[in-house]
Parts: sequence; structure tokens; C-alpha cells
Amino acid sequence: MASSPNDALFEHILVLNVPLPDAHRALLEKYAKTITHIPAVRTPGSVPDEEFRKATVIYGYPAGLKDWAQVPNLRFIQLDSAGADSVVRGAMWHDEQAERVVMATVAGVHMAPISQHFIMTTLALFHHLQEQIIVSQVDKRWGKDVEFGGRMFVQELRGKTVGVLGYGHIGRECARLSGAFGARVFAATSDGQKKSQTGFVEDGTGDPDGGIPERWFSTKDEVSFKEFLSGCDVLLLALPSTGATHHILSTTTIGYLPSHAIIVNIGRGDAIDTDALLRALDDKNLAGAALDVVEEEPLPDNHPLFGRKDVLITPHLSGRTTMYFERSIQICVENLRRLREGDEVWNRVDFARGY
Amino acid sequence: MASSPNDALFEHILVLNVPLPDAHRALLEKYAKTITHIPAVRTPGSVPDEEFRKATVIYGYPAGLKDWAQVPNLRFIQLDSAGADSVVRGAMWHDEQAERVVMATVAGVHMAPISQHFIMTTLALFHHLQEQIIVSQVDKRWGKDVEFGGRMFVQELRGKTVGVLGYGHIGRECARLSGAFGARVFAATSDGQKKSQTGFVEDGTGDPDGGIPERWFSTKDEVSFKEFLSGCDVLLLALPSTGATHHILSTTTIGYLPSHAIIVNIGRGDAIDTDALLRALDDKNLAGAALDVVEEEPLPDNHPLFGRKDVLITPHLSGRTTMYFERSIQICVENLRRLREGDEVWNRVDFARGY
Repeated sequence: MASSPNDALFEHILVLNVPLPDAHRALLEKYAKTITHIPAVRTPGSVPDEEFRKATVIYGYPAGLKDWAQVPNLRFIQLDSAGADSVVRGAMWHDEQAERVVMATVAGVHMAPISQHFIMTTLALFHHLQEQIIVSQVDKRWGKDVEFGGRMFVQELRGKTVGVLGYGHIGRECARLSGAFGARVFAATSDGQKKSQTGFVEDGTGDPDGGIPERWFSTKDEVSFKEFLSGCDVLLLALPSTGATHHILSTTTIGYLPSHAIIVNIGRGDAIDTDALLRALDDKNLAGAALDVVEEEPLPDNHPLFGRKDVLITPHLSGRTTMYFERSIQICVENLRRLREGDEVWNRVDFARGY
Repeated sequence: MASSPNDALFEHILVLNVPLPDAHRALLEKYAKTITHIPAVRTPGSVPDEEFRKATVIYGYPAGLKDWAQVPNLRFIQLDSAGADSVVRGAMWHDEQAERVVMATVAGVHMAPISQHFIMTTLALFHHLQEQIIVSQVDKRWGKDVEFGGRMFVQELRGKTVGVLGYGHIGRECARLSGAFGARVFAATSDGQKKSQTGFVEDGTGDPDGGIPERWFSTKDEVSFKEFLSGCDVLLLALPSTGATHHILSTTTIGYLPSHAIIVNIGRGDAIDTDALLRALDDKNLAGAALDVVEEEPLPDNHPLFGRKDVLITPHLSGRTTMYFERSIQICVENLRRLREGDEVWNRVDFARGY
């Protein structure tokens, strides 16, 4: 498809580290005079200087971008990740020149698969699925109920309280699905105020008006946060990585959870103090954890989190949906349209806040 | 608690093979002059003849009951299972004397855990969870995406078509949950007619008016059944074991499914021809199967169904909810009340039909 110079708002779109099938390129061509696609930026410095210099827009992961002098024409970065922390950690984003660039994430793009993952791993802990899989896959035999906790051992989501810590795109969809299974939902956010949903949301998903949680709690108010945690049968962590969320689950706060509670972390690994988690599990002060993210990734071989019946580890792949780039390009193109119209983009990153 | 002779409708309730905590016994005492509880009937003949002779009601599994002469006073059997096939296979149930007894199942009692299991195992196949668990539990290491199908490998329920074969309590709840995940639902039943739900249903669950399926199909009409199967991304089997459902999935009918389809069986194992299933998987004419039930239970050690990445075997424990006997006694007591009032009981078994 030829580019349409009349529509083109941006001189040059640099596409880094994401696939760009013809159908997606055609969508971008409506907004750009020229497009360069570098599908896999493996090493810093492997993006030609000239490409950075020309770029008005970067779509993907800006590997090798360290200094404002590299990108004199840059106006917009559409990241292909839901988080911005690995990018905005760079000093340039805390420089006053950062104001000339709008950055957006694709938060919402893996809402569906990660919310699936939350339900799947919660239920896997409830059904002792790990042990059942080891028996059938490794031992190659028919298991018995006593190996999995007795005659009647399956826990139900129905009637449980699911506490959602971090009520963004994913937290809201997990809340909606938990409700569909008959669970009661609590939400905890920094200010504890009921808020509407912003950014990219697929129809029929999430919690647009914030009406699902029965109660809202504030993580900044110790009394409120303690009350939140003490009411959780299932605690979902769906938090970005920021100074305020680092080790938000510590020995003290894990201690507020009921001993029968399970934790599911699909946000960022540093939200949980790993040593405190292991101690709580060993001491039976916590019933289980499903971790798609951990403090140190990759988790070292034979780390004590591996091989435990009460811990389900998946290697940070919960969001790897086959629909990923279909949704990413949809968000990118909608944001280009919004920039052209002068509207606020979806999922804009606040550099100071870090997400 | 003393029994209340004024309310008592039944002379003697014999409780076999189910727990009977005091709270449950108190509920039955409203309906019985005397109650005998035998918690674990291990061998045929271990229920004293006198107990069978006196029994007006049996609650549980009537182990050792073979002949009408044993139970001259019997009027009602409340089974503690969702299916009746293992009981009504007995010749006495096809005798004209069978008419004097009402039998009911506790269908609906494990609707919640089995529907959870359906969602969990479907998602486990979509996320390659078995392989991820083997890597973390057995290899004790952090896996890589390429081991699980590539960079973007997670399939979503959103947008998929879930075909529900057998639209009873469990099928309906699985339909509702599939819809919550954004899937389209098809239903197939013997006559293909939209029907309302009967029997025990928890509020907010299932599909009371049968409105969820976008289309209904008949298993008795070859053209209709073929069309149903060819539209399924996920096929759920939630069928009782009857002559009509035996090997309903054969080489021919499995061949109607798309090659990317997965099958989940939470009904009875003999609905699937195991050899045909294995051939279809080997030939890549089918993408996977999650089987909580199989033709031969227990499945023999090292059976070819064990140890396959594309088959998730659980040993017929999906319904083993900790809530099981709470719901069973609730159904039993409601049925006793209905018998007293002359109302139709919940979940009545049709001896000829077999469920």
C-alpha cells in the first residue's frame, strides 16, 4: 500500500523488535512518510544512528536509546510492553527534555491471557494440579485422592474473597472473572478511591466504572491495608514496579494474610520479598503461591522456590498471547490517530511515577 | 437433637458411605423416626440385612443392594453421586417393582468444582502449563518460551467457540463461564432443542433458560452433529454413560473436529474411543485432550495416554470439592421435603434412560 502523504503526520516511524506483517505496515503507512522495520534488535548499537535521528515515532522497544542527542526528532514512543519501568529507569527520562516526548505502553494488550493465567493458576493450586500432573506425566500412573489432600480436597472460588492489589487493566479483568466464578472482590490501590478505567479496554472486559469490588482499601493507610490483606482468601498482585510497590509484601504484610490464603503474582517480581514468602510457606502461615514473576529473573537453577508443591512457578510467560501483536498495532494506530487529533493517548506513561 | 415424630414421614433413613456430621443428622431427623449411619461400606454384605429391611430411605451409595426382597419398605434413594449408571445397571432397576421407588442423584453438587476444572484444564492446554510445571517442578529451572511453542504461544478462550456436548448442570455452568471469558458457545443434545434447566441449581450459576448457546445441535442427526463438531475450537464432553453416548467420539466423529481443536472430558470415559483419540493426536488431527475420565479406570500404569504433552490426565477427581457433602445433604433434605409435599423431587433418575 502506498503511503498517503495527506494523512501522514509523522516523518519517520522506526519499528523496533516487533513483527510487522504487511497488514500492520499498511496501518502505519497512513500516518508516516517512511517506515523502517528492524525486527530483532539484539545488541545496543545495532540500530543505525541515522534511524534514531530520523525517527519521529518509535514503535516497539527502544533498545540502545540512551541520550536525547540520538533522537532530535522524536515525538512519540509506543512501547510494545505493558510496563515502562525497564525503559524509564534510564536517566534521560528524568531530564527536562523528556517533556517533548509522549510515551505510551500497550497496557491492556495481554489483559486476556494474563487474566486467564490468574484464574488457571489459582484453580491449579485449589485442585492440586501440579501434583496430579507430576503423577500422570512423570510417574505415568493413575493417582489417588489421598495423594492430593484426601477424599474431598478441591477448593472452590465460589464464596471466596479475592483481593486485587493494583486495580489496572489486568486487575479489573481478574476481578470480573473472579466475580463470574462466584467470588467476592476487594480492591486495594494507593489512594483507595474507586476509579473508572482508562486506556485500551476490549468491549465486555474489565470493570469500566470500578463497580465490581465490594470494598476499596488504601495501601498507603496501614490500617486499611492490613484490613484488606486479612480478608483475602486469594491475593492477586497486579502492580507495576515502582519505589512504592517494592516489597509491598514483606514479613509484616504477609503476616496479615490468613494462613489459608494463596498469593498470585502476575505483575512485577520485586513486589514480594522472596525470603519472607519462603519463610511464610515453610511456617504454614501461607497456603501457596503462583508466581509468573520473581525478584530475580531468570530464577537461578535449583532456587528454593522450584520444586515445591505449594509454589507454582511459570517463567514470566503468562502474557505471551498469540493475539499480542494484533492488539499492539491496534493500540499504536489508535494512539497515532489521537496524536493527530490532539487527543490524549491511551496508556500514557508518567515518567516520574514510572508507569 | 430429638426427632420430631409429627414431621417424620419416613420410618428409617439408612445413611451409607457418606459422612454425617451432627448438623446433617439434625436435618434428617426432621424427616425420620430412626437413622442409622454406616460411614464406609467396604464390602458387599457389610450392611446388616435388618438395616436394608427397615430402610424407607437410603442416602448415599446403596452398596450390596441387589434384590427387591432385601428392601421391602424402601421408597426413596438419594444417591450421593451425580450419575446413576453404576447403580441402575443392576437388574432390579429394570424390574416392574422398580416403580415403587424414587431415586435421585445429587447432580449439581459438583457443578462448581467440575466447571472450574473444565476452565482450568482448557487453559492449561492453551498455556502449555504441563510443560511449564515439569520444567519448574522436576528440572527446577526457569523455562524459555521456545520450549512451550515460541515467543507468543498462549491461546485465548476469547473469540473461541466452545461446543458443549451434553447440556445438563455441568454443561450449562461451563457454558456460562466460557461466555464470561469471551467465548462463543454451541450446545449439542440428543434432540437439539433448547431446554430450561431443572433440578438443583445454585443462584447465579448455570443457564436456567438455555439462552447462552448461540446455536443448538442434535447428536441424533448426523448432519447437525457433524456441523456442531466442525465448528468447535474446544469440545466439552459432559455426558452421562448410556448406550447412546458410548463412543460418541469415534474415529469418524473425531474426524469432524478441526485439527486445532482440543477435547475436555469431565463426564464418563466411555464417551470417547481411546484408540481413535490416540490416533487422532498422533496424526495431528487433534491438538490436545484433557481427560478426567477414561474408558478404563484406573488407567493402567504406563498407558499410552500418560506422559504426553498434548494430554492432561487427572484421575477422576475434578468434582472432589470440600463443599460436596454440604450440598449433598441440602439436596437430600429438599427432596425429602418435596416427597412429603407430593412434589417432584430434584434430579429424579429415569431407570430406562439410565440417568
